[in-house]
Amino acid sequence: MPADGVLPEGFFSTSNLPTYVRVNGRWLLPTRPRMDCAIVRRTNGLEVREPRRLTAGDQVAMGLAEDGSEGIYVHTAGFLGGAHSANEFRFMSSEVSRERPVNYDELAERLIEERRQGGFLIWVAGPALVHSRARGDFEWFIRNGFVQAMLAGNAVAVHDIEAAIFGTTLGMSNTGRPTDGGHGLHMRAINQVRAAGSIEAAVKSGLIASGIMHALVTERVPFVLAGSIRDDGPLPGVVHSSIEAQDAMREHTVKATGAVLIASALHAIAVGNMLPAYHTHYEGVPTPLMTVCVDQTEFVVNKLKDRGTHQAFGVVTNAQDFMHVLRFYVEKGTQS
Amino acid sequence: MPADGVLPEGFFSTSNLPTYVRVNGRWLLPTRPRMDCAIVRRTNGLEVREPRRLTAGDQVAMGLAEDGSEGIYVHTAGFLGGAHSANEFRFMSSEVSRERPVNYDELAERLIEERRQGGFLIWVAGPALVHSRARGDFEWFIRNGFVQAMLAGNAVAVHDIEAAIFGTTLGMSNTGRPTDGGHGLHMRAINQVRAAGSIEAAVKSGLIASGIMHALVTERVPFVLAGSIRDDGPLPGVVHSSIEAQDAMREHTVKATGAVLIASALHAIAVGNMLPAYHTHYEGVPTPLMTVCVDQTEFVVNKLKDRGTHQAFGVVTNAQDFMHVLRFYVEKGTQS
Amino acid sequence: MPADGVLPEGFFSTSNLPTYVRVNGRWLLPTRPRMDCAIVRRTNGLEVREPRRLTAGDQVAMGLAEDGSEGIYVHTAGFLGGAHSANEFRFMSSEVSRERPVNYDELAERLIEERRQGGFLIWVAGPALVHSRARGDFEWFIRNGFVQAMLAGNAVAVHDIEAAIFGTTLGMSNTGRPTDGGHGLHMRAINQVRAAGSIEAAVKSGLIASGIMHALVTERVPFVLAGSIRDDGPLPGVVHSSIEAQDAMREHTVKATGAVLIASALHAIAVGNMLPAYHTHYEGVPTPLMTVCVDQTEFVVNKLKDRGTHQAFGVVTNAQDFMHVLRFYVEKGTQS
Amino acid sequence: MPADGVLPEGFFSTSNLPTYVRVNGRWLLPTRPRMDCAIVRRTNGLEVREPRRLTAGDQVAMGLAEDGSEGIYVHTAGFLGGAHSANEFRFMSSEVSRERPVNYDELAERLIEERRQGGFLIWVAGPALVHSRARGDFEWFIRNGFVQAMLAGNAVAVHDIEAAIFGTTLGMSNTGRPTDGGHGLHMRAINQVRAAGSIEAAVKSGLIASGIMHALVTERVPFVLAGSIRDDGPLPGVVHSSIEAQDAMREHTVKATGAVLIASALHAIAVGNMLPAYHTHYEGVPTPLMTVCVDQTEFVVNKLKDRGTHQAFGVVTNAQDFMHVLRFYVEKGTQS
Repeated sequence: MPADGVLPEGFFSTSNLPTYVRVNGRWLLPTRPRMDCAIVRRTNGLEVREPRRLTAGDQVAMGLAEDGSEGIYVHTAGFLGGAHSANEFRFMSSEVSRERPVNYDELAERLIEERRQGGFLIWVAGPALVHSRARGDFEWFIRNGFVQAMLAGNAVAVHDIEAAIFGTTLGMSNTGRPTDGGHGLHMRAINQVRAAGSIEAAVKSGLIASGIMHALVTERVPFVLAGSIRDDGPLPGVVHSSIEAQDAMREHTVKATGAVLIASALHAIAVGNMLPAYHTHYEGVPTPLMTVCVDQTEFVVNKLKDRGTHQAFGVVTNAQDFMHVLRFYVEKGTQS
Repeated sequence: MPADGVLPEGFFSTSNLPTYVRVNGRWLLPTRPRMDCAIVRRTNGLEVREPRRLTAGDQVAMGLAEDGSEGIYVHTAGFLGGAHSANEFRFMSSEVSRERPVNYDELAERLIEERRQGGFLIWVAGPALVHSRARGDFEWFIRNGFVQAMLAGNAVAVHDIEAAIFGTTLGMSNTGRPTDGGHGLHMRAINQVRAAGSIEAAVKSGLIASGIMHALVTERVPFVLAGSIRDDGPLPGVVHSSIEAQDAMREHTVKATGAVLIASALHAIAVGNMLPAYHTHYEGVPTPLMTVCVDQTEFVVNKLKDRGTHQAFGVVTNAQDFMHVLRFYVEKGTQS
Repeated sequence: MPADGVLPEGFFSTSNLPTYVRVNGRWLLPTRPRMDCAIVRRTNGLEVREPRRLTAGDQVAMGLAEDGSEGIYVHTAGFLGGAHSANEFRFMSSEVSRERPVNYDELAERLIEERRQGGFLIWVAGPALVHSRARGDFEWFIRNGFVQAMLAGNAVAVHDIEAAIFGTTLGMSNTGRPTDGGHGLHMRAINQVRAAGSIEAAVKSGLIASGIMHALVTERVPFVLAGSIRDDGPLPGVVHSSIEAQDAMREHTVKATGAVLIASALHAIAVGNMLPAYHTHYEGVPTPLMTVCVDQTEFVVNKLKDRGTHQAFGVVTNAQDFMHVLRFYVEKGTQS
Repeated sequence: MPADGVLPEGFFSTSNLPTYVRVNGRWLLPTRPRMDCAIVRRTNGLEVREPRRLTAGDQVAMGLAEDGSEGIYVHTAGFLGGAHSANEFRFMSSEVSRERPVNYDELAERLIEERRQGGFLIWVAGPALVHSRARGDFEWFIRNGFVQAMLAGNAVAVHDIEAAIFGTTLGMSNTGRPTDGGHGLHMRAINQVRAAGSIEAAVKSGLIASGIMHALVTERVPFVLAGSIRDDGPLPGVVHSSIEAQDAMREHTVKATGAVLIASALHAIAVGNMLPAYHTHYEGVPTPLMTVCVDQTEFVVNKLKDRGTHQAFGVVTNAQDFMHVLRFYVEKGTQS
């Protein structure tokens, strides 16, 4: 030790696994094991100790290799599971975590590349996307060719159309404040579309003059609104039969080269069930099918994986902020 | 009803509360109550029914008022709690929810206004802020005068300094990938700062050449790093004693005109306990003290409120995305 | 102060709100406000200070009243919201929280009382109830007369029948371990029921010899299995049409005197939408309809409330443990 | 197909991975891939199709083996990751999930076995354990020899002592209701213990006559209360210095043969950092150290693992219910 509490460069930093150090030809197991410490020589053996408690002159184990090649061997089998080899103790190994950084640059690049190749991107959206003002950003992605099909439920369309007609979602203003008589507004929005006859007719008549449904209709992007037992209304065009809705959705999933699933456990898992882990649309060769799942909690992403969609890449964040930041990166990536 | 399944404009949309309708001078309670429906006249009374199940010619209750003035009375007391008056049934009344939109415009404006007035903004940061690449954005806020003090723990500084020296946090690259030998890197970073003697010395020597701690030191923004039992190291300058750390933090909280608490339950609640709900720094008059709490889940914000910091405004999102979007809005707001 | 760091009994414990203390006929606002402290007299005024920092002989403000009647006035309006009166600063005011104790005694008593009165209890169940071995406990509630109708989806029945036939749910054993070829077992279970013709026929033939569906069929408790786009199969008897499923469910909700919603966001909110906040089945008088929502997170309960089912009482726990503990209390309550 | 929508026993159930079927000596990749379906022969190849859409007489692929030995080969490498072999597609593979059943039988057995062998069980407790009425159950474990050391913070002791003196925690009654003047009660409890001089003195004097701290003191079970910046008071005996607190805790962790970490991220991770993944207290051989982490969300358990405590077995449930059910199983296991 060069000084009290200061280790030499190249010290061995412990893990919590059984660790053997070769001293005078014998492999010794230090006492008092724990991670994030140094191994120090004592008259009668070795001790694991916090760096701050070591003093100048203490002899500590040196090296990075954990496979015994430099005199330190970390026993992983049976403690990390049999399949692990040396140097496999690590932090941050959860695949899905709010602490894991999102590589928006790479994500934006993938979307741009898919558009360039003529890919087929499916977007699955939950109502949080509309509640939380990501509506304008989603509209932007639709108008700019990044959405080849939208699979969603009645609620997404209802909130979007309530916003188009009344400027609210479930009676809440776009700054998050309740409005007077707000609890009936989604019913009034549905009623006006029913009177118009269809969403398409309501777009044509000018009743729906902005938002997601307006963009889908005017850009001729196909969508499936699958009915559920939670539906108010439902809106004209919603597919009541769960079997027919599945069949309609599958005609899109078989074409998919990528999928973005945002803020909907029900629809994400439904579409995940239909999506292969690969596609053969680029020259017939099985290619991994990009599947991004965005949710506020790790749970939905892990549930999606636990239902077999193991290939899903999880982004744990708020739908509004995701859409905002992703658009920013895609705009930047397409300008350059 | 103008048509099958289409209601007249101005129909009464039901809630789930006891609702009395005046018919021929008598107040009747309809059968089969539920929310989001219409009230239809039947030969022997009134029925609550889904709009889709009504037919042309059905007579439905009309009006928006729920206080009896237009013939419909909704009984809230005893069902919504005694303090509620008519027209108080509503959706989206949770104060803290991932579904509630964040008004970044207003938030940015508040920060800009505090800077203009010479306010004292305290930032409380958890390590997720560094893990998740919000590091550069936080640096920007420090360099641009929006941070008058940072209150945090050892881990924020450790991760930030590991990033400055090795480009990783807990051995994870800034795109979220593990690195070889990564589990020891935070220990090596701490060791190098201990060798340098202090964080300030390590900044001066060029060991720490970027990031949050670098910005704080070079911009002379005060900070308190409070020790905890989770600490590795700790870094020189961390206040080991929880009592001394509280006293050090409090010298900043008494000056605060605003506080932004991000991604740390421990530090947010600690600082929340010290923060008054008001301050008197603008002309001596008690003024509400802006308190923003950002976390991935509603739980931390509600816990903060449950510990008495009722004034906290909750933003339920990912720390990385929050910093990114907030900076974007503040930059926009200061350019105009 | 009787001793250093020890306050006299009856000291005034501060909140974070503006607090005025009457000294020599004048109302003074102490400096350095924060909660959980004492107010101490200084030569030139008053100071809020941590008890540990006070010394014997210091003069501190005494009293509990916050309305000025004993010389201390806490200003709530404008800081706690206009509707609050004095003495309203409090901790733990969130309605829904994992930290709030569940009163199982009271809950058990309510269920027993409903059964005694001939009430109609609706249970809404998500698949977590089956995964997590609460299956046997749910069966117990059905066999003992606490379930008058079950509203659920295809998945609950699929998992329950997979468990009856193969002893697994989604290929996972009842101790949580994967089984070989497990991913196909739910499909094989569905196929066998389809071959049998119906769930009822499969119970009669002995294919389904235990579990929730077996108990419902043999006890003649009605159930609705509403289809969704996530469904595998679906099983015979699942109502494919979301509109027909709603209509079928509503025939039960109009009879409800109570509802227990467990581990299903979709079905809980769907049924919540249909449930009135009251019922008139006991002598025609509107009585609050007991609505209990059990989920692992506060989010689902708050979402249910945000969709209008404000009367829901939230229990934030694991479905398996909830069923186990509730059964224990109900058994205890019925034996005495 | 024996009938429309009914598959033959032993059909091949698809995953979402590239799957090749040997037909007339050639390996064919079916079109329209997805999981949970059958593979059906078409004139010009093979198709993946939902069982409900198949009809009597359709020829479907049969078999369970995915390694090509029975004519079906599932390509996992590159899609499930290189380390996977055939038959590895599965559901429910997340290690930590609220959906994974808790094997209380096994857990109880482990605790009983550790007691029998004279093991050293460390319990780490967060304040939720006291809030939520698990207090009596924890007391039971202490009095019955299952707790050899408790590591916690000031708050656990404060809530427990408030409950002993006033019957409340943070002013909330044990049925979850607020009490008048409740926000000051924890400060009054702390003050009375400070007046008594120590927790031990307060137990001796009868001020603290029940609960966790009473049981620890009277049963002579050692405990460490580590200070933190969130502390009110703190109570006498709390170790203010984070470094001294670590050193005090470590004297217990080096003796540990097992650890139960409940409802505390801070303390669980702190103790996790100190705990080796093994111990040598039973005959000197490295044996895995049982580490159970109980929390309301998957996040805390995964964070603990991400900080290196990979051996932690996660139980995702409410602390109150966990303690209640575990005690029930341990009582049952010790009676037999």
